[in-house]
Amino acid sequence: MPILLFTDFGARDLYVGQVELAITAVAPRARIVHLLHDAPAFAVRASAHLLAALVAGMPRGSVVMAVVDPGVGTARRGVVLKADERWFVGPDNGLLAVLAARAEHVEVWHVRDVPPSASPTFHGRDLFAPLAARIDAGRFPSGELAHSATLDVPLPAGDLPELIYFDHYGNAFTGIRGAHMAPGARLRIAAESLAHARTFGNVLPNTAFWYVNSQGLVEVAVNGASAREALGLALGQAVTIEA
Amino acid sequence: MPILLFTDFGARDLYVGQVELAITAVAPRARIVHLLHDAPAFAVRASAHLLAALVAGMPRGSVVMAVVDPGVGTARRGVVLKADERWFVGPDNGLLAVLAARAEHVEVWHVRDVPPSASPTFHGRDLFAPLAARIDAGRFPSGELAHSATLDVPLPAGDLPELIYFDHYGNAFTGIRGAHMAPGARLRIAAESLAHARTFGNVLPNTAFWYVNSQGLVEVAVNGASAREALGLALGQAVTIEA
Amino acid sequence: MPILLFTDFGARDLYVGQVELAITAVAPRARIVHLLHDAPAFAVRASAHLLAALVAGMPRGSVVMAVVDPGVGTARRGVVLKADERWFVGPDNGLLAVLAARAEHVEVWHVRDVPPSASPTFHGRDLFAPLAARIDAGRFPSGELAHSATLDVPLPAGDLPELIYFDHYGNAFTGIRGAHMAPGARLRIAAESLAHARTFGNVLPNTAFWYVNSQGLVEVAVNGASAREALGLALGQAVTIEA
Repeated sequence: MPILLFTDFGARDLYVGQVELAITAVAPRARIVHLLHDAPAFAVRASAHLLAALVAGMPRGSVVMAVVDPGVGTARRGVVLKADERWFVGPDNGLLAVLAARAEHVEVWHVRDVPPSASPTFHGRDLFAPLAARIDAGRFPSGELAHSATLDVPLPAGDLPELIYFDHYGNAFTGIRGAHMAPGARLRIAAESLAHARTFGNVLPNTAFWYVNSQGLVEVAVNGASAREALGLALGQAVTIEA
Repeated sequence: MPILLFTDFGARDLYVGQVELAITAVAPRARIVHLLHDAPAFAVRASAHLLAALVAGMPRGSVVMAVVDPGVGTARRGVVLKADERWFVGPDNGLLAVLAARAEHVEVWHVRDVPPSASPTFHGRDLFAPLAARIDAGRFPSGELAHSATLDVPLPAGDLPELIYFDHYGNAFTGIRGAHMAPGARLRIAAESLAHARTFGNVLPNTAFWYVNSQGLVEVAVNGASAREALGLALGQAVTIEA
Repeated sequence: MPILLFTDFGARDLYVGQVELAITAVAPRARIVHLLHDAPAFAVRASAHLLAALVAGMPRGSVVMAVVDPGVGTARRGVVLKADERWFVGPDNGLLAVLAARAEHVEVWHVRDVPPSASPTFHGRDLFAPLAARIDAGRFPSGELAHSATLDVPLPAGDLPELIYFDHYGNAFTGIRGAHMAPGARLRIAAESLAHARTFGNVLPNTAFWYVNSQGLVEVAVNGASAREALGLALGQAVTIEA
């Protein structure tokens, strides 16, 4: 199965290639798929909701390295999580906690010790990538892991009524799952009350609307323009469902 | 042969990885090459000329998924195009029309039905990627396609005397093919009249010039600086050949 | 072994995919790893120090295509360099000179002739990528190369006390190797005198510090924010070690 990467390392930066080298050192033929490398930096909770939305599209059996880790090199522990037949490797700082709370079957292992050779600021390359590669190669690293009852940093399974991500078009993702919002409802953000549309071409140009995006999340968009700029939106901004 | 991707999904965004997963679900060993994921958003005609310029570098037999699709989810149809031994899959909205008009042999099939499970805003992942993967795997999806005489949205084969793309250096591509411009000619853009040079190092620093770029297109550039910023250029801006 | 790419072609641009096509035309199964495609444009010396810092992480036997080449198409020569069991292919303009000066064993070949079909502005695609692919495939292109005693453009092996790279978090890399700086030392940049910390979580939020980054270089950072913006930093800015 492919190894999936979800990080805030930056698609344009020099970190992702080094993660690939660390994976291929263990598993030279592994297929690596880059889900996202511009997860909201420093924003663990928003990233956790975004990652949870991507789970449905991940093949069962796949191994996901997920790293948004402002506390790298401090006391927070590394964790391996098995959730509904998918594997997740990353920091136990909340990033994996939303998907874990939503999964039916969860199993948790913590990393015993960070290798002394690991950079204190790049566990993605020096700790998590090799673990993910070994799991993907069918060589579960039992010696390095200790079975645990739960995550150190849990989060609730519920939706997050905030803006959690802007894509490069300027569309604004919320942490509200589409299944929890009726098409007749309106979405309030700042002074705007937005109606639903099914897709961009169904509203007039430069009109703001909400819709259920391709990730299953409620999204604020403007046809043919950037919602972020047109509405002056910011990450973490609250949204309200108007019933 | 590799599957080539040309989209406006954003290299830094979370869409391309999902396209890769959709391809590998059909063809686990396919090689995927990312031609461009920052084609000018919403600008189908400019993107069509840019894509047509890239055709010469595409291996014969390769399958290209091309998606710049502001009308996704509306009535415009999906299309499979065979043009001079290369396959193209994408929306029939003009994006494939310039390369089709320039090809010697063209064959056209339209998508009969969008799968009901497809997201209305991400046909790249849910419709075009699986089609491209099946064609690349040698399993032409005859059942899903209907043979057509022509594209719904044709475009002329001729050059486009406009700025169609800025690269990250700030160089400005025009839609004029280099073969159609004599080295002695000058290129007018706004108040500037630019002379030809063969390459950057042949003009003085901070000097603007035009040249035939590595894609075979006439390009406006400045040695050691961004032409976009130095000359205040904008996408769609007209250029004129001064004979 | 993988073929590693280090360029200023832009991760979001249309050049890297064409390099991949050029490589796969020679070596269809080659593994390509993208180390960096946003090396500081036009800044050969800074890029040379950044590339040299990455050498330790490159597997022995790997082939690196490295291109930051503002003089492309002029008289500067193409070069193949073997340095401590790693291969490097690129322009002989200083880019490979720092790593060469630091290597124990170096062997140099120059490219005899640029193929007449090569674009004068894209030797990465038309010259260096095919050379790298042939070397990786075990078919050393002896006919195209002439053995040389040295590089045309040498650089010293020593550190560069300047800012050489900003990552997307806004962290500022210097060209000073961490091994050359005592943890008790302070780093002066403009009006600031920075103390050392081991990692981000060890300083207060919004505090500036220096540390040895995951590439082995001294880096200026701010916990939870962009050092580039917070301190108003610029590429090439001088730093001083305060003993």
